[in-house]
Amino acid sequence: MPKLDLNRCPLKTGSIYPEPYASMMVGRSSLRLGEAGGLTQFGVNLVTLEPGAMSSLRHWHRNEDEFVMVTAGECVLIDDDGEHPMLPGDCAAFPANDANGHHFVNRSDRIAQFLVVGTKARQEVGTYCDVDMRVEIADGVATFTYKDGTPWEGPR
Amino acid sequence: MPKLDLNRCPLKTGSIYPEPYASMMVGRSSLRLGEAGGLTQFGVNLVTLEPGAMSSLRHWHRNEDEFVMVTAGECVLIDDDGEHPMLPGDCAAFPANDANGHHFVNRSDRIAQFLVVGTKARQEVGTYCDVDMRVEIADGVATFTYKDGTPWEGPR
Repeated sequence: MPKLDLNRCPLKTGSIYPEPYASMMVGRSSLRLGEAGGLTQFGVNLVTLEPGAMSSLRHWHRNEDEFVMVTAGECVLIDDDGEHPMLPGDCAAFPANDANGHHFVNRSDRIAQFLVVGTKARQEVGTYCDVDMRVEIADGVATFTYKDGTPWEGPR
Repeated sequence: MPKLDLNRCPLKTGSIYPEPYASMMVGRSSLRLGEAGGLTQFGVNLVTLEPGAMSSLRHWHRNEDEFVMVTAGECVLIDDDGEHPMLPGDCAAFPANDANGHHFVNRSDRIAQFLVVGTKARQEVGTYCDVDMRVEIADGVATFTYKDGTPWEGPR
């Protein structure tokens, strides 16, 4: 039925990033709300950040709009313009192809949560601002490269 | 910048429904968060329902996924299966082309709010379960008809 039982939604932990970046995502988990509800056009996840955790490497999307609303605790949105404290009810929008990369970091001593929505484009390129890496996603398969397009083999 | 100032987001009141249905939407308003943030692929609105207000006529979408998270107060989700109380943090998902129509009604004595996300399909058909009406939306223009496709001229 449409109303979701959050206790029965799939919980995603871990990261598809290659090391050493995957280990930097420890303390982050995502409840796959949209998937649980049968949605296919956009993803909806309830992300939990433990103290010290971050949402992702700082990044931007070529083809996918993204939206975030903080629902519990507090975290910091970091983008090209600096740091922005985010409290419950605070929202942020990241239009596709806007190269102002972002991520969320929990610097508090308690759990932070936010709802994140992102379009499910068939083809996507994510660019990581602070490291020499990007990801190309085609039909669900992610391929990491350097920003010049050559295969990613480790930090450089 | 990506973080939104909710005090500066466009507030939508009123309804595009023909009468007598437009008047039934009194007490409902929507902050256009996605629009304020420059998103084009899906809409994100923070809907406020005053006591007694409803979100819409009960309806379902042919082409657009929809997702709701209640953020304040309490309301009731009404669908084909009956009535489902919704409290802050409760979520519901409505996949495109699932004919289980829904709406949200605030039967409490204080304001209820929910975040609603919906794909922006170029062409859409919304069907209203409890009255003989549907809406066809093409490139932003809404046309109301009876369910047999003839022009809507009043309740029947």
